[in-house]
Amino acid sequence: MPENIMHRDRTVTKWIEEISRVIVQEKDAQLDIEQKTAANDLVTNMDKWVEKELVKRIRTAYPKDRIVGEEGFGDSIKDMSGTVWFVDPIDGTLNFVLQNENFALMLAIFEDGVPVQSYIYDITLNKLYSAIKGEGVSCNGQQMSKPKDVSLCDGMLATNSSIMIEDKYDKVRKIARKSLGLRLVGSAGLETVEVAKGSIAAYIATNLKPWDVAPGILFMEELGLKATQFNNEPLDLLKNNNIVFAAPKAHEEIMRLIN
Amino acid sequence: MPENIMHRDRTVTKWIEEISRVIVQEKDAQLDIEQKTAANDLVTNMDKWVEKELVKRIRTAYPKDRIVGEEGFGDSIKDMSGTVWFVDPIDGTLNFVLQNENFALMLAIFEDGVPVQSYIYDITLNKLYSAIKGEGVSCNGQQMSKPKDVSLCDGMLATNSSIMIEDKYDKVRKIARKSLGLRLVGSAGLETVEVAKGSIAAYIATNLKPWDVAPGILFMEELGLKATQFNNEPLDLLKNNNIVFAAPKAHEEIMRLIN
Repeated sequence: MPENIMHRDRTVTKWIEEISRVIVQEKDAQLDIEQKTAANDLVTNMDKWVEKELVKRIRTAYPKDRIVGEEGFGDSIKDMSGTVWFVDPIDGTLNFVLQNENFALMLAIFEDGVPVQSYIYDITLNKLYSAIKGEGVSCNGQQMSKPKDVSLCDGMLATNSSIMIEDKYDKVRKIARKSLGLRLVGSAGLETVEVAKGSIAAYIATNLKPWDVAPGILFMEELGLKATQFNNEPLDLLKNNNIVFAAPKAHEEIMRLIN
Repeated sequence: MPENIMHRDRTVTKWIEEISRVIVQEKDAQLDIEQKTAANDLVTNMDKWVEKELVKRIRTAYPKDRIVGEEGFGDSIKDMSGTVWFVDPIDGTLNFVLQNENFALMLAIFEDGVPVQSYIYDITLNKLYSAIKGEGVSCNGQQMSKPKDVSLCDGMLATNSSIMIEDKYDKVRKIARKSLGLRLVGSAGLETVEVAKGSIAAYIATNLKPWDVAPGILFMEELGLKATQFNNEPLDLLKNNNIVFAAPKAHEEIMRLIN
């Protein structure tokens, strides 16, 4: 691993540990909850604090880098040149508020559009999943093996909520029927982890924001899995995406069924 | 608490602890997996061993009682008279096999049709939820408080997989649209626990077996929550049920929307 990447990996891991300790300590305190675009699109004082804290640390340590954050404390970018950080302070805020579990802190680093480091931290289970380009994926420092390449009929399908509820996504129900069953956690990051572990054959979701999907690209790449838009194109982190993260066999079937 | 119930509670808790220790120790060993009615209806040697072990212990300690178990090592019953035990050795066998998490061991005891003791043990998280008639619900011995009575618009909806996939359950999609979002764990027991904790407003599922739903009845009763069939009738443990476990407000809305 190049020295600069190794050093940045140690730095980011330390930040995540320090910041999540505060999330865990403070999560029983009174949360200040606001609606964003809808009743199920929430932001809390904790989301904002985490993002501000991460942005501050990135700006201090890596002043030339640009940052795209869910809560808007980063930059507005029009291209992927240079080093770009994607920050999701709390992925699964609705779970954070209602369940007090099933949420994640996520970070992804791209260099000239190439994903080089990704982090998904399952805070309640204390599991930090990290991917480093060329080095594979690990959970709490322990290397994860590549999952089996499974077809839909041998695995389960994860989706986001709206795709299962809205009538217009009838094709996704057809895909689900070919699978062993449906699972829905409500955190793009944790669904990504399930695909990475091979406990889910595929994750299909609509209209995900760049910071929801950015970490998953490297996880899939390093584990021999697929990450594309519905139209089989690579993800575009300058806009929202309809995404498929999947084992290659399941991905091929989904591409056939969805298009 | 009556002395006989207290004694039986201690006995059952000890059984669950001893038997789950074996499940955890042995779960990385080669599983022997068989299909039952379909590719996603599995049974393993572990399901069978757990049920046999529980049936043996119940028969020895309580020889007059009758037992209904998922894997068929108990009795076939035609009424609910006397003391009847419902045993689900591993609820969420598909998760057990594919995810190695999100499964539960479940027991429920009825006396002349009245639920008196219920146990749902989340094995990977080591959380034993138990309900005792008149004594409320506890998690690892710590009393749980009654959850807030929420409407659909203030909570999430959990369902089983087939209900979201099949076209005929269009009404459930309508109900889901009124909620904050959909969640799907794939274990009736663990969905029941989410309703009990108040992290989910309602759980709707079709065609559940008696051992899937038996423990939930007392959990709902003790926490001021509702447990009914789709037609608002009480559950019938002599057959499969389409069930709604929910906060009273959400339950009322669901009854209006589903019928």
